[in-house]
Amino acid sequence: MDCLMTEIDASLAHLVSLAGDRAAETPVSALFLHRWSARAMTGEPIPEKVLFALFEAARYAPSAYNSQPWRFVYARKGEEAFDALLAALSDSNRPWARNASALIVVASKAAFTPPGQEAPVHIGSASFDTGAAWASLALQAALLGWTTRAMAGFNADKARAAVRAPEGLKLEVVIAVGRRGDADDLPPEKQALEKPNARRPLARTAFAGAFPEEV
Amino acid sequence: MDCLMTEIDASLAHLVSLAGDRAAETPVSALFLHRWSARAMTGEPIPEKVLFALFEAARYAPSAYNSQPWRFVYARKGEEAFDALLAALSDSNRPWARNASALIVVASKAAFTPPGQEAPVHIGSASFDTGAAWASLALQAALLGWTTRAMAGFNADKARAAVRAPEGLKLEVVIAVGRRGDADDLPPEKQALEKPNARRPLARTAFAGAFPEEV
Repeated sequence: MDCLMTEIDASLAHLVSLAGDRAAETPVSALFLHRWSARAMTGEPIPEKVLFALFEAARYAPSAYNSQPWRFVYARKGEEAFDALLAALSDSNRPWARNASALIVVASKAAFTPPGQEAPVHIGSASFDTGAAWASLALQAALLGWTTRAMAGFNADKARAAVRAPEGLKLEVVIAVGRRGDADDLPPEKQALEKPNARRPLARTAFAGAFPEEV
Repeated sequence: MDCLMTEIDASLAHLVSLAGDRAAETPVSALFLHRWSARAMTGEPIPEKVLFALFEAARYAPSAYNSQPWRFVYARKGEEAFDALLAALSDSNRPWARNASALIVVASKAAFTPPGQEAPVHIGSASFDTGAAWASLALQAALLGWTTRAMAGFNADKARAAVRAPEGLKLEVVIAVGRRGDADDLPPEKQALEKPNARRPLARTAFAGAFPEEV
């Protein structure tokens, strides 16, 4: 087992019922309650080993036919591509996302050519599977003491141009990655939102045997 | 912190480079390398606390506008809904999935009515976000010593009827959950597949600054 490279918190694997304002109805590994999508970030440089641990976690996600439809482009603060991506973000996201340590474009490719075959097949679950990779990335970040926030609010044309996304790739989200910063540095209207948010009760999420009429 | 209810393995949070036949290019939390989608399952009963810990992990996944588009129906082996779902699975999945402890339908709902509003909006990332919930569920299962395998191979009409899925819900996958069983009990053509599978290299998954022409 490799030595730790950063303050990984193994206690996050243990089962808890409370994390800050979040309450679990059934004890759950603290990791899932502790991960939340902060906006305030310090903008400090992200070590290459941290950045690549995130992609490593992501690529071991499950996918249909092991097609691995996820693709990522990353840009660190200070790099040209970071500024180009930042310019593609919505007016609501740009003011805080500029303090991310890195921005990551998450894309999916539905066309998949199985090993030994010549013609590609269409993977209907490409977006779903890519969401699984994103969660793995986010959870690995949390385990390493970093925060992530996915944004669907961006100009697709600008973002595609910024990262030269070829046809056949669907841009899913842009992720901001960083160390948690000070909420006071956020735009005023975002400050009250800077805390873990709640969820719908389990009784309206998971059902025994059949769905209710209203879901 | 609650006491542990099952053999949770906190060491899965630590960084490793190897897990069985899987090699990480960058050290990654063991959890992500250790989770894999086994088919051989024992069919033993799944405790309610384990089942609900999975949904608990899933519901704390991130989603656009915190819309939480995921919905789940579960059926335990021996229950009527389990048999109905089993009958909806493809001929390739049915023979092994019958030994699952539970089958879970994962669905997404793209129509979301924001708090305080009357009209629903369409969440473009509903499938992507639901994939994030699925990964959280799978990783929580792995932390608790259970295995999961998602199946896209099912008859959609039969599955919808089995769980009375209302219009507006998209069925994404059916998940088999169980304790790992003996590979020798699998159909012969599945036995050689009963091990963690590999992934595309990081260099073809994560790119600096821009996508290459061929992804």
